[in-house]
Amino acid sequence: MRNVVVLPREKVLRDPVHNYIHVTHQVILDLINTSEFQRLRRIKQLGASAFTFHGAEHSRFTHSLGVYEITRQICNNFQRNYPSRTPGDGLWDDHERIVALCAALLHDIGHGPNSHTFEHIFNTDHEAITRAILTSPDTEVNHVLKEVSDTFPEEVASVIAKTYPNPQVVQMISSQIDADRMDYLLRDAYHTGTKYGMFDLTRILRVMRPYKNGIAFESNGMHAVEDYIVCRFQMYQQVYFHPVSRSMEVILDHLLHRAKFLYDHGQMTDGQTPTLLVPFLENDFSLKDYLRLDDGTLTTYFTMWRDFPDDILHDLASRFLDRRPLKSARFTQETRDLIPALQRLIEEAGFDPNYYTAINDSYDLPYDAYDPSSREPKTQIELMEQDGTLRELSTVSPIVAAITGKSTGDERFFFPREMIYPDELQLFEPLYQQFKQYLHNDSLVDPAKG
Amino acid sequence: MRNVVVLPREKVLRDPVHNYIHVTHQVILDLINTSEFQRLRRIKQLGASAFTFHGAEHSRFTHSLGVYEITRQICNNFQRNYPSRTPGDGLWDDHERIVALCAALLHDIGHGPNSHTFEHIFNTDHEAITRAILTSPDTEVNHVLKEVSDTFPEEVASVIAKTYPNPQVVQMISSQIDADRMDYLLRDAYHTGTKYGMFDLTRILRVMRPYKNGIAFESNGMHAVEDYIVCRFQMYQQVYFHPVSRSMEVILDHLLHRAKFLYDHGQMTDGQTPTLLVPFLENDFSLKDYLRLDDGTLTTYFTMWRDFPDDILHDLASRFLDRRPLKSARFTQETRDLIPALQRLIEEAGFDPNYYTAINDSYDLPYDAYDPSSREPKTQIELMEQDGTLRELSTVSPIVAAITGKSTGDERFFFPREMIYPDELQLFEPLYQQFKQYLHNDSLVDPAKG
Amino acid sequence: MRNVVVLPREKVLRDPVHNYIHVTHQVILDLINTSEFQRLRRIKQLGASAFTFHGAEHSRFTHSLGVYEITRQICNNFQRNYPSRTPGDGLWDDHERIVALCAALLHDIGHGPNSHTFEHIFNTDHEAITRAILTSPDTEVNHVLKEVSDTFPEEVASVIAKTYPNPQVVQMISSQIDADRMDYLLRDAYHTGTKYGMFDLTRILRVMRPYKNGIAFESNGMHAVEDYIVCRFQMYQQVYFHPVSRSMEVILDHLLHRAKFLYDHGQMTDGQTPTLLVPFLENDFSLKDYLRLDDGTLTTYFTMWRDFPDDILHDLASRFLDRRPLKSARFTQETRDLIPALQRLIEEAGFDPNYYTAINDSYDLPYDAYDPSSREPKTQIELMEQDGTLRELSTVSPIVAAITGKSTGDERFFFPREMIYPDELQLFEPLYQQFKQYLHNDSLVDPAKG
Amino acid sequence: MRNVVVLPREKVLRDPVHNYIHVTHQVILDLINTSEFQRLRRIKQLGASAFTFHGAEHSRFTHSLGVYEITRQICNNFQRNYPSRTPGDGLWDDHERIVALCAALLHDIGHGPNSHTFEHIFNTDHEAITRAILTSPDTEVNHVLKEVSDTFPEEVASVIAKTYPNPQVVQMISSQIDADRMDYLLRDAYHTGTKYGMFDLTRILRVMRPYKNGIAFESNGMHAVEDYIVCRFQMYQQVYFHPVSRSMEVILDHLLHRAKFLYDHGQMTDGQTPTLLVPFLENDFSLKDYLRLDDGTLTTYFTMWRDFPDDILHDLASRFLDRRPLKSARFTQETRDLIPALQRLIEEAGFDPNYYTAINDSYDLPYDAYDPSSREPKTQIELMEQDGTLRELSTVSPIVAAITGKSTGDERFFFPREMIYPDELQLFEPLYQQFKQYLHNDSLVDPAKG
Repeated sequence: MRNVVVLPREKVLRDPVHNYIHVTHQVILDLINTSEFQRLRRIKQLGASAFTFHGAEHSRFTHSLGVYEITRQICNNFQRNYPSRTPGDGLWDDHERIVALCAALLHDIGHGPNSHTFEHIFNTDHEAITRAILTSPDTEVNHVLKEVSDTFPEEVASVIAKTYPNPQVVQMISSQIDADRMDYLLRDAYHTGTKYGMFDLTRILRVMRPYKNGIAFESNGMHAVEDYIVCRFQMYQQVYFHPVSRSMEVILDHLLHRAKFLYDHGQMTDGQTPTLLVPFLENDFSLKDYLRLDDGTLTTYFTMWRDFPDDILHDLASRFLDRRPLKSARFTQETRDLIPALQRLIEEAGFDPNYYTAINDSYDLPYDAYDPSSREPKTQIELMEQDGTLRELSTVSPIVAAITGKSTGDERFFFPREMIYPDELQLFEPLYQQFKQYLHNDSLVDPAKG
Repeated sequence: MRNVVVLPREKVLRDPVHNYIHVTHQVILDLINTSEFQRLRRIKQLGASAFTFHGAEHSRFTHSLGVYEITRQICNNFQRNYPSRTPGDGLWDDHERIVALCAALLHDIGHGPNSHTFEHIFNTDHEAITRAILTSPDTEVNHVLKEVSDTFPEEVASVIAKTYPNPQVVQMISSQIDADRMDYLLRDAYHTGTKYGMFDLTRILRVMRPYKNGIAFESNGMHAVEDYIVCRFQMYQQVYFHPVSRSMEVILDHLLHRAKFLYDHGQMTDGQTPTLLVPFLENDFSLKDYLRLDDGTLTTYFTMWRDFPDDILHDLASRFLDRRPLKSARFTQETRDLIPALQRLIEEAGFDPNYYTAINDSYDLPYDAYDPSSREPKTQIELMEQDGTLRELSTVSPIVAAITGKSTGDERFFFPREMIYPDELQLFEPLYQQFKQYLHNDSLVDPAKG
Repeated sequence: MRNVVVLPREKVLRDPVHNYIHVTHQVILDLINTSEFQRLRRIKQLGASAFTFHGAEHSRFTHSLGVYEITRQICNNFQRNYPSRTPGDGLWDDHERIVALCAALLHDIGHGPNSHTFEHIFNTDHEAITRAILTSPDTEVNHVLKEVSDTFPEEVASVIAKTYPNPQVVQMISSQIDADRMDYLLRDAYHTGTKYGMFDLTRILRVMRPYKNGIAFESNGMHAVEDYIVCRFQMYQQVYFHPVSRSMEVILDHLLHRAKFLYDHGQMTDGQTPTLLVPFLENDFSLKDYLRLDDGTLTTYFTMWRDFPDDILHDLASRFLDRRPLKSARFTQETRDLIPALQRLIEEAGFDPNYYTAINDSYDLPYDAYDPSSREPKTQIELMEQDGTLRELSTVSPIVAAITGKSTGDERFFFPREMIYPDELQLFEPLYQQFKQYLHNDSLVDPAKG
Repeated sequence: MRNVVVLPREKVLRDPVHNYIHVTHQVILDLINTSEFQRLRRIKQLGASAFTFHGAEHSRFTHSLGVYEITRQICNNFQRNYPSRTPGDGLWDDHERIVALCAALLHDIGHGPNSHTFEHIFNTDHEAITRAILTSPDTEVNHVLKEVSDTFPEEVASVIAKTYPNPQVVQMISSQIDADRMDYLLRDAYHTGTKYGMFDLTRILRVMRPYKNGIAFESNGMHAVEDYIVCRFQMYQQVYFHPVSRSMEVILDHLLHRAKFLYDHGQMTDGQTPTLLVPFLENDFSLKDYLRLDDGTLTTYFTMWRDFPDDILHDLASRFLDRRPLKSARFTQETRDLIPALQRLIEEAGFDPNYYTAINDSYDLPYDAYDPSSREPKTQIELMEQDGTLRELSTVSPIVAAITGKSTGDERFFFPREMIYPDELQLFEPLYQQFKQYLHNDSLVDPAKG
């Protein structure tokens, strides 16, 4: 039995996207007040994107509250319009509400600063850490969840891991159109000031409905769902994949890499050691070590590294802190072979190509129908006709069909801005003239074929 | 002569409040790219308010861009509709545009993390630092400004210091209705998700006009100006003075105070020394030291202090990082005398009153007419009739008159939450029962008079 | 017993202000579909204001839906957070929901085109007509209401007439801060494109609570209520009292007056008779006659009157249709005596002062505390402390106090634009020169005192 | 030579979509004040769509101002960033501004009430009428335009007719991404309260640029243009093609048709004759007759026809005024043959199929590349690379390619609601049971194949 305490009066948190976050249960209030959850205030939701869209300074804390709020609204709609009458009728059983709400709130609890880059360098794994935060007896989160029942932490973790038995609950939190994605599109659009993520949330929530195998959408809401897919596609193309943001992530990656290199080679002396990073540099960290990290930890060490004797370390630290992105150009399978020649020119100009160039691709699968042969088959989006028949979205929408199952994005070569805007003195040096001949219309080209 | 380079094509930065920030001059672009200006990305505009309004995570960087943009729009309007024909005609001379734009952009450049609290503990002064950043030959900002002319850094600094000869330029940046205030009201309203700051910017800009002694407002725009004053008043009462935010600032103040105490008494050993704070603890810091600080620096040390042996230091650090505010109650001149008794109870409960209680007032003067006898007489808001006659705002608006010259706000006593929500075991201890008798309707009361 | 049919699934109507109007009961759906309610689509909410704010073309239909929706949200909040446990406990009894919703939806059902002017000329009374529509057995509305119970039409009518026994229900619909005012402020702000009406609805709804004598507001929501009062004040001053709109209403008034004059004097021949207006010209109309009228009826006759031989009738009709407002100037008790002299000049210029001039005042009482001696004492706004104590709003808010009990607005004299912008030929005629001497700074002045 | 008078100070009109409409030239102010332009206030922009989206009550007047404002902004951008240096350089010549602005403002001046249906019944042609209003010496519009130059009315007319020599000017007003479409998408989205039309206007304006053959878009703005195309597609599918709106248009069409039938057969007696419609019923109307019509004219006659003896006329008039739409179902080439059987059942139930059923298709070509073989080849959307190369939009965007050149929409059969919701008494009559068997999932189906 779950011990679910309903607050006699709702509490509300003012939110710029959903107006209010409504807190209706004691366990939600207590989870928000845990140390592990409060830590999310100090981790930006969009990482390096704020270097391109200066308003995008919101944290994972606000996003997590938003996912919770959307999930709450879905539950309200399901309970008002599709309440289960008899077990197994495929409608909504409101006893599932509390596990859905907790999973929504906590789905990102394992994230650290600049997760993707950090994980790449230090072999951390935010999904494993999420699970640990929920189930380890040392966390406040675990303590709070156990107030509901002894098995509740595991149940919430299983929703996030998509192994929870009720597919409606799982799909609310993780599917191609879930509360997580819906909140981040709206919130990122709000804070970047772009409009691409502004799909019609209320209409989507209206046409969402439970059924036996999870969540479907009434067929008359097809265009609203289609519009959501396009919004998501647009946000990836226009915001998340922006070359300047990716360039700043490249700098971050190379900077952490250099720090690790110097540490591994004993070139960081005592006074310069980044105390809170040591467990990660040593590749021997505890959950407690991980929970000490946030965006500020990294930038504080970068600030200190500005005065570090190693030229590469202090230069990259300055480029990151002062937002001096690398430049980039697209390349294709055909022009990929030009890169070594470019790297030689860059080296000739005095830059170590390992630290001052990079290849980076950004691809997203905007939507995919279920494909049992894929490594990670997706829960496809189902439209339900009046008679209960289901039709997969891309069979009905030509727009969605056009992007279904196709990765979209680009592959770019990053290099120092100085290669195309050198000092005035160097402006006419052949090296830079030569470099420029490889660039045309934001792409690499073969000067020999010009 | 000023060397003003106009960009052949405008550059734009996407902004959630103004849609786009239009960059039209090379010097503006170069200023934005300086190390000192980029540093503002790492300093929150509203400090502890984000603990109350979770969306309020925006930086001084975005606000500074916004002040610049509003100033640009004011200049455009003045140039379109009130261009000076002959020197001294009291209309707008567009040669002043560049100094106005630079001053707008840089007016907050001297701010550090949690400025008000930090200044209080460490005797820094953001106005003096602003001036230093503009005029010291060691900064990138100074270098960029000098490209315009040798005297330009001083000119920009004098606008910020309100000593620049053209009062129109000064009042654009600093007056009771200036680009600074207009941007922060709109931006803080946007990010907190409250609506109180949403006055009608376009209408205000429409009715603004230059005149001989500065900036006036057409009398038919009176209600728009009145509405702005009320918005500002509302934001102070509802957002900036929120007791929870003030409580978090109290904790921060006490935490830094404790750190300084421990440092001064030699109780911080080498490994625990907050390197970047040392110059401030030693009260011997350079501009360079100051520019190394940001929000993340502070929280990184707070994270480390969580493991510090001193009970007060690690507890206050945790309360700040985990957002565990003190509680508070209003008091008046009459009930102020009750505080020592309360402090004794708090001490009895095991809390050092020096670190766990505080008196804090928040008062703002929403608007003031010019008063030559005041210490810092304000530039009053003038309405201009069709025939050029000026009338001071509060003589026309009864609403404004009602709050003119009156400080509004409250004075509060802060104390640990544990005093009213003790452990279950302590719930019926007389100490806590006694404490509660002093509290009624969010205020201190004398139990003897109950 | 009331027969209340709840829809198994909510129906929703898309609304630009509230996003969705949620229809949850069969009776609401049926009321919306009545002929009398659909007629409100053809009557503008703001009448002549659309001549000043071109976006303000919304109808009483949309406003009525909005008042219903806000009332529904108030009921939801009351039921969630303040449900009555025992009769007479002063909390919310959800059996009252259906009468509140119907009254909210129907509160404006008796309005006709340009109600205020029309009533003035033809002695109609929209309140009496509202009552008739609800209780006359000939209307569809009455038929639908009777499905709930035989006495239900009378009950709904009594809510609108403020005689219903439950003061919470009455105050939801009619008080100084009711669903009606809240919807029209937001909606008029939305469609005019002004921002003055944009108070914080969600916060107001949060702090609203039922009590024994009606509805109160939690004292910590004081500033939100204060802000609403100021918004309302601003909308009156800046939108509803705009001199151009009032001038167009003056033209309408004089035009209908002229038509009545001509009809009464037998100067309208058969072909020219405005068939649908005849019952009103005859002062002998039925409810059915009244329900035939809408905005289009009036403008259709005005179009026809453009070709009517009477000079005044066809000129005023053209001025109204082509939006050619009169000009105006403020006057005071002192300058009121100048008006006859101005009217003589206007007559001299060829305009009949009865049809081409007017005196019009627009005054509103933004807020009033309860005054038993007033003709129509208002239900004052009460703030409730934590301990249940009530405090009247203006005793707490200096801003509200400044406008409490004071009518604000102005009194204007309207005259033909031609008096100040005559034909080029007449530009220097003494008549017009003389007229202008009476005008200064948008006010009448005595040239003798110049 | 054009005589272009610039206003010394801009005038502004408050607009909910663009915030302000900036009027900068005397001729624009004068055009707005003409009788012909003011008449657009009385004609709804979206006609019958307001029956589905109750907020969509805005007029062609507001839309026309919006098209003007967007055009003004395009001109400002072109003049700031792409001013022509030498004739024929393909950049923007600001002397073209005034003709562009006037054409933008007047492009819809020839519309009448419910244009599409009205034209269909009465053989009017809003394009020919637009031309007549501009060039006929009897209109105020013509008089105002002539103040600029004698040939100016013809020039403005030629922009609207797409024969003006400068393709940049023509494409601003009429192309697949022009000021007209951009305004109506944003405005219709604003007033319906849907979000589908909310594309990123400022970004589109940023990437728009003049070139020799008209207007192109910088290639890095591809996704913004793509998003606009999808928005337009969505608005058609979700708003403009809504079956309820189309059903109301069907009723209007049949109602006017019936009126014409009765008039042609001499069954309208004197007192009942719709005076202002007579010229159209007689098929002998002048421009003056046309300019007398507006939405209110039609509904006034419909109100009168409610009491007309002809059963079909008065029933259809009531259905239109009281918003009682027909029901509908989709059909395909295969199921089209079922319609006669359905019509027989409908006739059997007592409804004349000529007046109570209809076939209606709504198809739109969301975007088309230039196809010289098409009847009306479209100006395709061109993206411009850094080096000036042009690429047609659908060759770059798979989403746009998916809908390029393909009409999308549906074909529906409309029938009386009574066929599926008969009176309780008739509920089990075989006729209605039989009818329902033809309907499944919002489509016609063959019961024999069931």
